[in-house]
Amino acid sequence: MDKKLLGIDLGGTTVKFAILTEAGEVQQKWSIETNILDDGSHIVPDIIESINHHLSLYGMKPEQFIGIGMGTPGSVDIEAGTVIGAYNLNWTTLQQVKSEIEKGTNIKFTIDNDANVAALGERWKGAGENEPDVIFMTLGTGVGGGIVMNGQLLHGIAGCAGEVGHVTVDPNGFECTCGKRGCLETVASATGVVRVARQLAEEYAGGSKLKACLDNGEDITSKDVFELAEDEGDDLALMVVDKVTFYLGLACGNLGNTLNPSTIVIGGGVSAAGEFLRSRIEKYFKEFTFPQVRESTKIKLAELGNEAGVIGAASLAK
Amino acid sequence: MDKKLLGIDLGGTTVKFAILTEAGEVQQKWSIETNILDDGSHIVPDIIESINHHLSLYGMKPEQFIGIGMGTPGSVDIEAGTVIGAYNLNWTTLQQVKSEIEKGTNIKFTIDNDANVAALGERWKGAGENEPDVIFMTLGTGVGGGIVMNGQLLHGIAGCAGEVGHVTVDPNGFECTCGKRGCLETVASATGVVRVARQLAEEYAGGSKLKACLDNGEDITSKDVFELAEDEGDDLALMVVDKVTFYLGLACGNLGNTLNPSTIVIGGGVSAAGEFLRSRIEKYFKEFTFPQVRESTKIKLAELGNEAGVIGAASLAK
Repeated sequence: MDKKLLGIDLGGTTVKFAILTEAGEVQQKWSIETNILDDGSHIVPDIIESINHHLSLYGMKPEQFIGIGMGTPGSVDIEAGTVIGAYNLNWTTLQQVKSEIEKGTNIKFTIDNDANVAALGERWKGAGENEPDVIFMTLGTGVGGGIVMNGQLLHGIAGCAGEVGHVTVDPNGFECTCGKRGCLETVASATGVVRVARQLAEEYAGGSKLKACLDNGEDITSKDVFELAEDEGDDLALMVVDKVTFYLGLACGNLGNTLNPSTIVIGGGVSAAGEFLRSRIEKYFKEFTFPQVRESTKIKLAELGNEAGVIGAASLAK
Repeated sequence: MDKKLLGIDLGGTTVKFAILTEAGEVQQKWSIETNILDDGSHIVPDIIESINHHLSLYGMKPEQFIGIGMGTPGSVDIEAGTVIGAYNLNWTTLQQVKSEIEKGTNIKFTIDNDANVAALGERWKGAGENEPDVIFMTLGTGVGGGIVMNGQLLHGIAGCAGEVGHVTVDPNGFECTCGKRGCLETVASATGVVRVARQLAEEYAGGSKLKACLDNGEDITSKDVFELAEDEGDDLALMVVDKVTFYLGLACGNLGNTLNPSTIVIGGGVSAAGEFLRSRIEKYFKEFTFPQVRESTKIKLAELGNEAGVIGAASLAK
């Protein structure tokens, strides 16, 4: 009988689980709440209990699994299978995730950070079309990413490979939480888009609903900015989208010039702006890449949404 | 008996050969002139003849070799073992390098482009200290490079991975031969350094030997600029070095933020400026990297000089 993969996407509010065939077909899905109380000490036991419960529910045995893969926030030691500094889980001290889950389930366990795992998912079953060289960029509260080259995730010497949110796109730009200036994240995360809107609004004199909202002290989201730009052709909102996509195109362009992947996949909440966003990133991407890269590296929207995490996590176990 | 590796570094003026142990010790070295006449049609036959001649000289047989590896200018199809568009060799049409050399020597043959092969050399036996993640950047007539991650060369979908010379460091910068603007190569190649000197000289009003030379229409090289800056403290020359190293630090910083290699190795003719250059690139590298990368990725000078090519080429055959 074909063996299965078990993928886990550990997040600050829910833990998602999926059982997949080796070919990547999702056969079962479920999720539980993430209980972050007591320094997150319930999380791993809850995961173990949930796995064992569902295996018994489905009449499955540990021997039927090739392995479990998990994506997690925080800093991951992929060799040791430990996690530290996942603040949305209240994991401030070193967590022995791999050894506990292997002991509790009798299934081999592999772990990586959530952005890397989402990159694996989009590469395997999403916009990456299972090509060997795919970069994933997620535009959400922050900007993160993962890089797959020659079919393998890149980690780098300290596990920071793929941290595309901290690429410097403007040496004189906004200060970033990381301590340096002009990171992509400061202008292309959900809060970054609003930051750019506030900056441009200060100098903007014409008529604009976005300008009026900001001047009235209303809470504006990046979604509002993209909707005003796309649906109402708001002049200021269009300028904001232009500036944000200029920086995204510059960052994607330099990823292309350096790594020449088949695809750079754009995901995360901000990417809900869809083709309106993608086409504008692509315009600047083409401006900032040399001909061979311009013609071979594609800019695509993510296709798996929330499922990228569990699918990519499952692929870790292969 | 231990088997050997044969490395070939094919250049526009000479072809360098070396026989190495599997551990990378150079045991024999020789070179021949590159005969680019008749559309470069003598090059491959000359290489075959030279290999066979030296093998017989040393009393060695094809069976004693694991393989031959070669670095070449031009566009390489590493699977097919073919080269096209190597203009300094007069190779404008497709060259069947692999099949001819394997037929002529009875030794397995592997090929890659010269910058990638130099990256392999510096990674294996040079400043890269045989770490799995090493980036090599060569500052010469142009700016090229090669990227090794997880111990493997990266090529990308169209073979352009590692083309760090075409990273955009200034969206409003100089036009590049590639057709876009602000490529690292336009400011950090040997001619790029002189271009920056001319640009800054136009606005510079103070006393400067560099300014006087440029105003007198003297031919200035990047070496002159670095010497005037380091040895004479020439004010304009120091400004040029500052600007060039700002862009190099920005490009290296973003390579670090994206890939987090253990080392970025700086080689090529311009790197003869040594620690004076390296320390200034490092200063800006630290400004443009987030803390974990700043602390884990090192900027080093190349250590193998001209030998990087043959050594890296030999490692292709492993």
